Amino acid sequence: MARTVRMRALQSMLAPGLGTSGQPCATDARRQVMKPGPKNSIADVAGIKVGNASDPLAKTGVTVLLPDAPLRAAVDVRGGGPGTRETDALALDTLVDRIDALTLAGGSVYGLAAADEVAAVLGARGQGFGLIPGVPVSPIVPAAILYDLANGGEKGWGEEPPYRRLAREALEAASDDVSLGAVGAGTGATAGDHPGGLGTASFLSSEGYTVAALAAVNSFGSPYVPGTDSFWAAPFEIGDEFGGRGMPERAGAAGFPPDTKAAALARQNTSLIVVATDADLSAADLKPLAVMAQDGLARAVRPAHGPTDGDIVFAVSTCTKEVPQPLMTLTELGSIAGDVVARACARGAFAAEEKS
Amino acid sequence: MARTVRMRALQSMLAPGLGTSGQPCATDARRQVMKPGPKNSIADVAGIKVGNASDPLAKTGVTVLLPDAPLRAAVDVRGGGPGTRETDALALDTLVDRIDALTLAGGSVYGLAAADEVAAVLGARGQGFGLIPGVPVSPIVPAAILYDLANGGEKGWGEEPPYRRLAREALEAASDDVSLGAVGAGTGATAGDHPGGLGTASFLSSEGYTVAALAAVNSFGSPYVPGTDSFWAAPFEIGDEFGGRGMPERAGAAGFPPDTKAAALARQNTSLIVVATDADLSAADLKPLAVMAQDGLARAVRPAHGPTDGDIVFAVSTCTKEVPQPLMTLTELGSIAGDVVARACARGAFAAEEKS
Repeated sequence: MARTVRMRALQSMLAPGLGTSGQPCATDARRQVMKPGPKNSIADVAGIKVGNASDPLAKTGVTVLLPDAPLRAAVDVRGGGPGTRETDALALDTLVDRIDALTLAGGSVYGLAAADEVAAVLGARGQGFGLIPGVPVSPIVPAAILYDLANGGEKGWGEEPPYRRLAREALEAASDDVSLGAVGAGTGATAGDHPGGLGTASFLSSEGYTVAALAAVNSFGSPYVPGTDSFWAAPFEIGDEFGGRGMPERAGAAGFPPDTKAAALARQNTSLIVVATDADLSAADLKPLAVMAQDGLARAVRPAHGPTDGDIVFAVSTCTKEVPQPLMTLTELGSIAGDVVARACARGAFAAEEKS
Repeated sequence: MARTVRMRALQSMLAPGLGTSGQPCATDARRQVMKPGPKNSIADVAGIKVGNASDPLAKTGVTVLLPDAPLRAAVDVRGGGPGTRETDALALDTLVDRIDALTLAGGSVYGLAAADEVAAVLGARGQGFGLIPGVPVSPIVPAAILYDLANGGEKGWGEEPPYRRLAREALEAASDDVSLGAVGAGTGATAGDHPGGLGTASFLSSEGYTVAALAAVNSFGSPYVPGTDSFWAAPFEIGDEFGGRGMPERAGAAGFPPDTKAAALARQNTSLIVVATDADLSAADLKPLAVMAQDGLARAVRPAHGPTDGDIVFAVSTCTKEVPQPLMTLTELGSIAGDVVARACARGAFAAEEKS
């Protein structure tokens, strides 16, 4: 009965440490106050900086994620239209599981050049994977792009796309102050029939791990409940971090949403996401963290992961906090990763609507 | 501004056929009245029958999906603990892309035997993939299992698990009347700290395609918004198909949910899902349909796709309705597949709570 379930749920809220069976259960013991990190951004993971560069006339840009030291990394790609670089190197059966930087960019295939510039700069500094003493190191700079070529900006660059220049600017701008909205890779982004943009959010777990997300939202689907200005991510909002608009009690949303991208723009999508933590998870645990983080995009944008999206989640770790119980910690951090991704997506769209 | 977005969304609702740019857009033209099929079940896809068999003492069971003719099929597996059979055969680069039946079962690894029985029965009837005239055909019967071994039922079966017997009973019971709740593969299922079960739902698209789902929900995560009896799937509910409880305006749900499965039960999960349509999609289009359908589980259960789940979506088609524009149709049906999966999950849990 509904009443039974309600009582049980309340009981579980009121009596932490005991499951409905009366046995102690870890999930209750792990209950926590909702708490973002001090910046509510991916820079709350100590050692991670973000730099953005925008070309307002071309309506495009580049975001660089720059760590103080190489990050362990894994990746999950979903949807029909990905545009990526160095993602194969992150497979679990390959040599490399640390990265020196990440680039997210507009510009579709042209935006992949952003990673070339970052690799060249870092390599010249001697930062990268070094196999043979005395020869250049190989900086591992995975990259992913979103499609903003048809957003009305001036794209007549011929053989000189701006992404290497933007990448250098973004690299030089890297700091722990992360901008939101129409900046960096989110400069020319659209989310369904609405402005898209760059968002970020963070969370401190009950065990003291930080989990944070950075998201450039350029989705086919919409971040809004149809016919309202409520964000799909509203149930996961902390405070008024994206307007505090709540959810309609009865959304009646079944069926194809009316505010996805129009037909002519159908192929012009993809959301780019980075989830970061300080938990010392193995690459084999970062991969499922990325998989669970994709569910945050599913909750924040509808539909997501479509045939014209190339949605990608990089999961990275600074590996600074020990993880004695990987299975339970991964389960909890994966669930939280979904939340921070949903919140980062809504914060990006919210910041973009303020500027539009 | 919030106001701008609200106005724009309303405008888009009121002026179908015109996007915000003033150009006609397919998404508006495709807008539709929310409409399930006549049975609101997977049997609304003509030619698909479902049979259930339960062992109430052992608290386990089997569900068989039996088509009138072989179904084109693809599969998407996610999470750390899958238990499957004949899923490799459904990869896009393999010989077979039609299946003769599907089994979903409790019993963890023992439940895979359900498919053996179905294959033996169908093979004896001459139904299956035939390579050489005069030798037995090979019925393709993919299967997936969920973990219900520790749910308190009598499992002392030694070398004689009941799944072949249950599979035969389920096969003989196959009809277009699909039961919900603690039946078939959902007999012994739990959903987080709540009863789980078998659910189903359907939808008629604007172009006349039927999309439907069958879900055995046995998730680590919970189908309820924490501290309430509201289903996460509430925004997609049609009528009062799972109680009409709506969503809380402010859920404040960020953080690890309190009502997941307790630690001792952490490995005892997995939701098994079938999405069916009559749209004549290729196997290469059914795979992304399964991927988008997984997002329905993400919206209905939180967390989903965790390291102790082996969540699986089979996407199947009777291939009876032509698809002139596969890309747009796949996008729409994929979005709808997410909705029907979310609704099927909530209907399964709702029916199970009524019986508990």
